[in-house]
Formats: sequence, structure tokens, C-alpha cells
Amino acid sequence: MMDGDTHERLRCHYELRCRPGESAERKVRGIALEQTVELPDAVLSEDLREAIVGRVERLEQRSQRRWDAVVSYPAGIVAGEWPALLNLLYGNISLKPGIRLTDIHWPASLLERFGGPAFGIAGLRELLGAPERALCATALKPVGASTAALAGLAGDFAAGGIDIIKDDHSLADQQWSRFRDRVDACQHAVAAANARHGGRTLYFPNVTAAPAAFAERLTMAGDAGCRGVLVNPWLIGLDSIARARDAGFVVMAHPSLSGALLGHTRGLSAELLYGDLMRLAGADAVIYTNAGGRFDFPFARCQRINHRLRRPWQSLRPAFAVPAGGIDSARAGHWIRRHGRDTILLIGGSLYLQADRPAAAARLRRAMECTE
Amino acid sequence: MMDGDTHERLRCHYELRCRPGESAERKVRGIALEQTVELPDAVLSEDLREAIVGRVERLEQRSQRRWDAVVSYPAGIVAGEWPALLNLLYGNISLKPGIRLTDIHWPASLLERFGGPAFGIAGLRELLGAPERALCATALKPVGASTAALAGLAGDFAAGGIDIIKDDHSLADQQWSRFRDRVDACQHAVAAANARHGGRTLYFPNVTAAPAAFAERLTMAGDAGCRGVLVNPWLIGLDSIARARDAGFVVMAHPSLSGALLGHTRGLSAELLYGDLMRLAGADAVIYTNAGGRFDFPFARCQRINHRLRRPWQSLRPAFAVPAGGIDSARAGHWIRRHGRDTILLIGGSLYLQADRPAAAARLRRAMECTE
Repeated sequence: MMDGDTHERLRCHYELRCRPGESAERKVRGIALEQTVELPDAVLSEDLREAIVGRVERLEQRSQRRWDAVVSYPAGIVAGEWPALLNLLYGNISLKPGIRLTDIHWPASLLERFGGPAFGIAGLRELLGAPERALCATALKPVGASTAALAGLAGDFAAGGIDIIKDDHSLADQQWSRFRDRVDACQHAVAAANARHGGRTLYFPNVTAAPAAFAERLTMAGDAGCRGVLVNPWLIGLDSIARARDAGFVVMAHPSLSGALLGHTRGLSAELLYGDLMRLAGADAVIYTNAGGRFDFPFARCQRINHRLRRPWQSLRPAFAVPAGGIDSARAGHWIRRHGRDTILLIGGSLYLQADRPAAAARLRRAMECTE
Repeated sequence: MMDGDTHERLRCHYELRCRPGESAERKVRGIALEQTVELPDAVLSEDLREAIVGRVERLEQRSQRRWDAVVSYPAGIVAGEWPALLNLLYGNISLKPGIRLTDIHWPASLLERFGGPAFGIAGLRELLGAPERALCATALKPVGASTAALAGLAGDFAAGGIDIIKDDHSLADQQWSRFRDRVDACQHAVAAANARHGGRTLYFPNVTAAPAAFAERLTMAGDAGCRGVLVNPWLIGLDSIARARDAGFVVMAHPSLSGALLGHTRGLSAELLYGDLMRLAGADAVIYTNAGGRFDFPFARCQRINHRLRRPWQSLRPAFAVPAGGIDSARAGHWIRRHGRDTILLIGGSLYLQADRPAAAARLRRAMECTE
């Protein structure tokens, strides 16, 4: 089943912008060739043209320069591999202007092959003993702090009952806090606080690294007793999420670098990127930048992402939305009401600004309880 | 030496676009915080502020909305790891508008750590027995063709004396031509043509895949007798180039997906992306989209990339520029004169359009000889 049913097709929806004098028909036909055979039509046999070249299923003019197009591709091109999928979706056409991939109608074989989350919303709720309420998370930072300082923060936040404490995405294996030391110290600090306060806080170290170090850090995380990890998939390949999932971890996906793929007239739609792709890859919780914060996604975009992460989707488990980036902890209730309870609110700076960290963490945790 | 001298710094040059009312000072200070501590300044100790936070070295207004800025970061943040480097260069700021990374002044320790090409221009010339002339390359395609058909093409192109025959970047391990079969059949066809015609053509299979399959394909490529491979680093992590290099292969880097990182007002400059980053990562030959072709980079941009690939740069070997994408083989001489002889001209479709492929290949190869 690696290649799926050969008759199955991916249907890719594009938004095209044509320059003056540019033909939309030629543009969409160019995409269908570029993303498959990468050859002029004239050299193709009838068989290849029929079986392999993307098929233009629809082309509709929306305004003077804007067209909507649908091109379908045989699922066999993906061959069950993430790099081949990403290459098909936005490989060479990333170098051409005015092409934005807005949506995909996925064939069942690919959904089955890539599989989605192992825990999902229900599984993570069970680990945390939180069957219904919204969840809260924070990040250990900054890079440059000592392992002892980071472990102290982890203990403080766990004492206050934060659900998930993750490494900042910039913490790797720097000289100031080696991964090996940090994963033990922070997991120990969290476990000790849990034992003292009866909490169930989870610590997710950042395992993002080249493959050998990634595998080693997963092993260290497992040995330390961690149940989940943070992964930056855009830095190391989308299959990294599945590697962490298949090693038994809850996976939280970070959006570092992914902004390069968002654009008004090019790139991928945010709901496709953070919704479909991250969930399909196996992320149980997907970080994206919240409305009104340092990065300022429109709220409607956040809602579209949330919907994609949570909607019924074949046999794939739903995943938590994790809005983040400059959220004020005093407004936690507001944001949970807006995003709904299947949300993990990720708050960093605003907690750090409060002098009594266990108390600040406890206030945030309480805000997760009373949001109806 | 993993972290380098702790006093060494990366100096990153940014082009900033400020919206009306946006302060350039705040914007650049925001970058310096975002890419390091990701915390408000108020919570930082004096030590962290001094040692870790990016240091704004320069800020100059260029026009009403445009500013040039230089921020330096301690090299220790990179910790000798590609994912951490990419995260520092364009991680979270990829999600903010109006920030373009145009250049980097690299600390010596990072250049030494990442190391650059193992073969470089001189090494690849030696393998090919071509000490001075320009080189030519083509791609085996399309996806969907059988292994026998692809091997037949490889034999034809090798008979004509093409220097490097690479897999199309869309060839992975699809049902129509399995990697294992293809690498043997194509390498065999090329070796047979070399023996028959006294040529030294090299075949580079595309090994781009998730880590386990990547390692397996490198092994198969080596077992088959291949001396080089094609890698799509933006799909699987920039360290993939070093993994192929360290396994003893010549590495040709493909730009699939990299267009997402190019923009007028955001992303990375093309010379930084295809020049510095690919060479530093260890690519011996770097494919980018030529002027005047299907993708249409301005020629001045090509020249800047070429310069970065070839210039003296500490102890790093220079790398071949590989302009590609819709080059007409009849204009090969023209393009070699423009790009210079340390160029591999990569021509696909135009060769395929000619009925007698060995003859077309031989004409292209001859054009590499007489270009002064």
C-alpha cells in the first residue's frame, strides 16, 4: 500500500495571479507539467500524458487577474514519502510567481499512509487527566540560561499546574545547557513538583536536530521519562514528526521557518500548512501565531486552522490548536472562549513578567477551568 | 570546538521595511530579542542581555520606509548544528513582515565546523578529467517512465558525452521505477557507454528521502558505483548535504521548495541561499534557476550567486554554479560565456526535444569546449 491505489488522485486547489498578458490556461498547464514530468508536452508519450501529468480539473476566473484552478495528480507520485509529497505540493513552483496552494482534497490511501496523531486530543487529555477543559502551556527559556535556572523555572511552572512545559524552540544543545543535562534536570523538577502538588504536568524537550542527534535525543527523552517532545519540522523535514510519534511520544509541532511558506500571492494557505499538513504528519498539538499578538494572524485564519485540526477526517485523530506568540496571561479566558476548549494556550513572556511564577502559573491554570 | 569560540559572532545584515508609524529601532530590537531569548527585555538579567541577546550593530535609513540593519549574535547559539543555524537566521522572523536577510558575516569557527564541499570545483573536474572547460548536465525523466526507459536515456546521454546525468528531482522510489532498480540500471548503462566511447560521464541518483531511506539509498548508490548524488536539502534539512558528503559522494543540491524563501521584502537573498548556505553545507554543485528561462532570475542575481560559490572563502573549496530551468541547448555557448567556465549547464527539456539524443548530447558537450 506504499503507493496507494494507482487510480487515486490528489486534487490541489490553487489561487493564481496572472500578470498582464499572462494566460491562465498556460499557467495552470505549466503547473501540471512542472510538478510532474518537468518536460515540454511535445516529448511525452500518450501514456505518460494520461497517467502522470497533472490533470487540469477546473479553471475559473475570479477577477481580472485572479483565477482559481484545480489540478489533480496521481497519488503514486508521492510514493508514501513526505519529501516527495512536499516536492509535489510546492517544489519547483515555489520559484514561480503568483501560485498559491490553498487546499488539497486528499486520497484515502495517503491519509492512511501518513496516519496523523497517535495521541490526538483525547489521548493527550487522558495523559493530563483533563477530560474537558482547555489546556495551558509555557516555554522554558531563554537560550543562554543554565540548566539549573531552566529546571528551576520548570519546577515553578509545574508547581502552578501548567499542563505542558516545553523547551523554547531555540534551546538545542548549546554550551550553556546541554540537552542531556537539561532533559534530566527539567523532567526531574517537573516530576518532583507533580509529586509535591499532585499535578500531572508534562515536560516536552526540544529534540529538533539532524537525524542521528534527533534519534539520540528521543532516546534521552524517553530514558528521562518524558511523554512528549517539541519538534520544528520545517527545519528538519516533515517526517520528523512521525519519527517522534512512532517512538511513542506526544508531538508538539513548532512553526519556525514556516512563515516563508505563507503569502498573499504565493505559498500555502495557513489552514493547509498548520491544519492538514501538521495533523497528517502526526502532530498532536500544533503551534501557530495567535491573532493580536507579536505576529498577528487574522482571527478568521486562526479559526480555519482550528477547524482543520479538529474536524472529523477519515480515521485521523484530531489535534490540539496551540495559539501562541505574545498572549497576555490576563486575557487567557478571553482567548479560550474565542478558540474553544480544544485549545492549548501557549504563553511565555507574560508569565515571565510576573514576579511570583508559581502563582502566575496557577492563575493561568485556573483560567482554563472557568471558560464557559 | 562544537560551539566555536564563545566570543565569535554571526553578523546578520537585514533589509527592513517599516509600515507607516512602525519604528525601525523597535523593529530591529524586536529581531534581536525574537531570534535569541524570545522574552521581553524587562525580564532579562544583565548577563543574558549582554551575552545572548542579538546586538544591534548598525541601523541606517535608506528611504522613507527602508532601513538597513546589522545584528550580531553569539556563534554559540548555533552550537554547530544546521537546524539551530536556520532557526537563528530565519525561524520566528519568517512570520513577521518586512524582514529580509541579505547577508551574513560568518565567524571562522562556523565555517570550519560546517566545512563546505569535499570535492569542490577542482575535485569534480578531476573525476571528470575536465581540468578547464565548462561542464554540462542533464536530468533523467519523467517520473512515471520505467527503469528500462530511464536507463536507455542514461545510455544515450552518456554516449554523447554529457558530464553529469542526474535523476530528475521528482524521481524517488515510485512504483514505476524503484530506486533500487534504477540506480543499478542507470549506473550500468552509463558505465557501459563510458566503456564503449571512452567517456567519463557520472550518474547522480536522487537520494532525497527521510533519514533511514536516505542512508539506505546512499548505500545503494555507493554499491552501484555512483560517485555523486542529487539532494533536495530544503525538503529534508540542510544537514542532508553533509550526510551525503561525509559518505564520500559528490553532492549536487536542488532548489525544490527554496523559492518560498525568496522575496522582495522578506526571506533570504538568493546569493546567501544558493551561494553561502549551499556551499557551506557542502554542496559541490548548486542548481538554481537561470535568467531567461522558465523561472527567470535576473542575470545580476545569477552573477551574485556564482560569485559566492566561487570566491575564496577561508579554507572552503569553491563549488560549481548550476544554472537550469528551460535553457535551450542551442544557446549553451552563449550561457557558458556569460556564466564563465566554472559552470555546469543543466539542460533537460531542450535535449529531450531532439530526436537523436546521443547526437544532441554530443553537440551540447562540444559546446562546452569552445567557449573562449
